Amino acid sequence: MNKHADFEGLEVGYDIPALPGMDEADIQTPCLVLDLDALERNIKKMGDYARAHGMRHRVHGKMHKSVDVAKLQEQLGGSVGVCCQKVSEAEVFARGGIKDVLVSNQVRDLAKIDRLARMPKLGARTICCVDMMDNVADLSAAAVRHGTQIECLVEIDCGAGRCGVKTTPEVVALAKAIEAAEGLKFAGIQAYQGAMQHMDSYDDRKAKIDLAVAQVKDAVDTLKAEGIACDIVGGGGTGSYYFESNSGVYNELQCGSYAFMDADYGRILDKDGRRIDQGEWENALFILTSVMSHAKADKAIVDAGLKAQSVDSGLPVIFGRTDVKYVKCSDEHGVVEDLGGVLKVNDKLRLVPGHCDPTCNVHDWYVGVRNGKVEVVWPVSARGKAY
Amino acid sequence: MNKHADFEGLEVGYDIPALPGMDEADIQTPCLVLDLDALERNIKKMGDYARAHGMRHRVHGKMHKSVDVAKLQEQLGGSVGVCCQKVSEAEVFARGGIKDVLVSNQVRDLAKIDRLARMPKLGARTICCVDMMDNVADLSAAAVRHGTQIECLVEIDCGAGRCGVKTTPEVVALAKAIEAAEGLKFAGIQAYQGAMQHMDSYDDRKAKIDLAVAQVKDAVDTLKAEGIACDIVGGGGTGSYYFESNSGVYNELQCGSYAFMDADYGRILDKDGRRIDQGEWENALFILTSVMSHAKADKAIVDAGLKAQSVDSGLPVIFGRTDVKYVKCSDEHGVVEDLGGVLKVNDKLRLVPGHCDPTCNVHDWYVGVRNGKVEVVWPVSARGKAY
Repeated sequence: MNKHADFEGLEVGYDIPALPGMDEADIQTPCLVLDLDALERNIKKMGDYARAHGMRHRVHGKMHKSVDVAKLQEQLGGSVGVCCQKVSEAEVFARGGIKDVLVSNQVRDLAKIDRLARMPKLGARTICCVDMMDNVADLSAAAVRHGTQIECLVEIDCGAGRCGVKTTPEVVALAKAIEAAEGLKFAGIQAYQGAMQHMDSYDDRKAKIDLAVAQVKDAVDTLKAEGIACDIVGGGGTGSYYFESNSGVYNELQCGSYAFMDADYGRILDKDGRRIDQGEWENALFILTSVMSHAKADKAIVDAGLKAQSVDSGLPVIFGRTDVKYVKCSDEHGVVEDLGGVLKVNDKLRLVPGHCDPTCNVHDWYVGVRNGKVEVVWPVSARGKAY
Repeated sequence: MNKHADFEGLEVGYDIPALPGMDEADIQTPCLVLDLDALERNIKKMGDYARAHGMRHRVHGKMHKSVDVAKLQEQLGGSVGVCCQKVSEAEVFARGGIKDVLVSNQVRDLAKIDRLARMPKLGARTICCVDMMDNVADLSAAAVRHGTQIECLVEIDCGAGRCGVKTTPEVVALAKAIEAAEGLKFAGIQAYQGAMQHMDSYDDRKAKIDLAVAQVKDAVDTLKAEGIACDIVGGGGTGSYYFESNSGVYNELQCGSYAFMDADYGRILDKDGRRIDQGEWENALFILTSVMSHAKADKAIVDAGLKAQSVDSGLPVIFGRTDVKYVKCSDEHGVVEDLGGVLKVNDKLRLVPGHCDPTCNVHDWYVGVRNGKVEVVWPVSARGKAY
C-alpha cells in the first residue's frame, strides 16, 4: 500500500500526484516528473552560454507555464525575464514575481488589451508585440486609461509564416507610430524563426536563420539610421540559439524547450551530426506512466494516453529502454509492445513526450524528483491560461 | 469595449471566458462553446433511440468530463448513469450527484483501488472492469477494508487491442473469481469495440462489430449455462450503437461523442452513405477563436492552437464557412488561409475540433450559448482528472 492510502477519511478526490518526501515508486500516475538534477544542469548550461556570448536570456515561459521553473531559471541561469504567448499567462508570471514579462504575440481583443495595460501595476515591466498599425491606438488608449506604460516590439515574420510584418518599411512605420503614441514605448524587434527549429539538419537550420538575420539586420540598421534604437532584438530557440548569439544583431534569446527537452526536439542534429538529446541537452521532463493491464502476453497497456500528452509531434519514447516500445495512443490508454513479456502490472515507465509545450499544458503538477525521492511538487501555474 | 473591461479593480487574472447574459460577441477566446439547442437535440435523440430499442444508456463522461452535461443527459436523455475511464473522474461524477458510475477501465494501483473502494460512500453505485486474475484479491481487500461493495465487469477485448481478455474461458474464470470474492459482485461484461468507431464505411464497421457480437454472445451464453447472469452487457459508441442495440446481446450503450460531435467522427458515413454530421448528429461543440493578426493579405492568424485543442485526429474545421480554411496549428497560433481577404482582426470563428475528448480536456469551461447570448458557463468538472 503506498502513502496515498494513508489519507483515510479524505473521501473526496485528492489529485496531487505526490507529496514531498515520498518515494518515487509511490507517485500516482500518469503525471509529469522532472529530474531535478538534469533540469538544473540544463538551466545552468544555457545561462553560462548566454553570459559567455553577451546575450540576455528571456526564457520562454509558454513551454513550462511554471512560476517555479521560471524562478529557477532566474537563480541558476541568470535569465532576465520571461516571455509567454498570452496575456493570462503573463499575469501569472507577473503575480508570481517575475519582473520583466514579454507577451511575444499580438494582443488585439480590447478586453485583453485592458488586462495587459494593468499588468505594470503588478510590478512587472510589460512588453507586447505589434504587427498592424490599428493596434497602436488601442494599446495606447488602454495604457493612458490605466496610467501605465506598455513597451512594444515590432514583430517581424522572418520565416515562421504566422504573425509579423515582412518588410523593413512596415517595421519603420510601426516603430514610429509606437514612439509617437502616448503610454507606449518602442522597445525593439521580435523576430523568432519558429519554422526552422525542428529541422533535423544543422545546415538547413543555418540556411534559414541566415535569411532571418539578414532581414532583421536590415530593419535594425534602417531604424538606427532614422535615429530609433532597439533595446531588444529578440528571438532564438533551442534549435537555433547559437546562430542568433553569433549574428551580431540579436541581443536576447528566447529558448524554452532546452530546459525540459522532448522526443521531437531531441531528434534534431547538432553541428557534429549528433542528436541534441545526446550531449547538448538532457531529458529532464517525463510522463510517468504505469502498466494497468497485461492480459495479452505481447502488449502492456499503460495509463498515459492523449489526455496525458499531446502527440502532435509524434508518440512518446520510453526513456532508457530498448526492449519495450510505446506504439499506440488513445484517449486514456497507451499500448506498449512488450514482445519479451518483461513488464508487469504496476511497473512504471518514464515517457519522453513528443512535444513538451502542449503536454505540460494538460497537467496540473510537476513532481520534481532527486535520488529516488520526491523533492518538490510545483503547480503548472499557467496551465489553461489561453486568453 | 466588451463586458470584461468593466471589471475595473480586478487586478489579478479573471479566466472565466464569459458570464451568463453576455452577448456571444463578447466571449473571451479561445474557449469551448456549446450550442445548447443542438446539444439538447442530440441528447434527446439518443435518449429516444435507446428507449425505443430497449437499451439502457450509460453516457460516456470521459468525453465531456462535465457533471452539468451528465445531468442534462439524465434529464433529457434518460441516461441511467455515467461511465468514465479514471477513478479520479469517477469521484467527480459521484460527488456531483451521479448515482451509478462505471470506471470502464482497469484499476490496478493500490492507492487508486483504495479510492475506488470508498466511492460508494459518496452515494454512487461503483463499478469497474477486470481483465486479470490477480486484480480480484486487491479489489476485494479494499472493499472489505471500507465495508463497501465494488461491482465488477469482466472486460473483453473484442477488437480494440487494449485491455481485456480474448477468450470465453478467461471470462468465465474471472467471473467466478469475482463472484467468490468478498466485497465484490460480478455485474457482467464490458465489451467496447473502440477500434472500429472511426472507420468511414458503415459496412466495414458492421463487419467488425459482427465479430465482437459473436465473441460477446459466446461469453454471455457460456456464463448463463454456468448459472452466472450478466446484469450489464455494455459497449457501443457513436459509430456503432445501432449494431449493439440490435445484437440481442448487449443491453447498455456507452456513447459519448454523439452529444458534441467532432470533425473526425463527423466524416464517418451512415448506412445511406451520408456523413453522420449531416443529419444524424449536430455539431454542438466548438472552439471559439479570434483573428489576432492579418498582417499578410492571404492569411489570418487565430488564437487557438495546440493548447486549445488536440490535433491527434486532424486539424479543426471552420464551421459554416467554405471561404476560409484552418491549415496549420502551432502551440498558440492557428493559420487560416484567407485567399479572399474576407476576415478582419477580432473576427470570431467557430472551429469544429478534430477530436472532442482530448480537446475538452485542455479547457476549464464550457460556455453554453443560445440565440446569441451566453446562457450558462459550466466547469469542465473532471478536466485533468487523469489518476
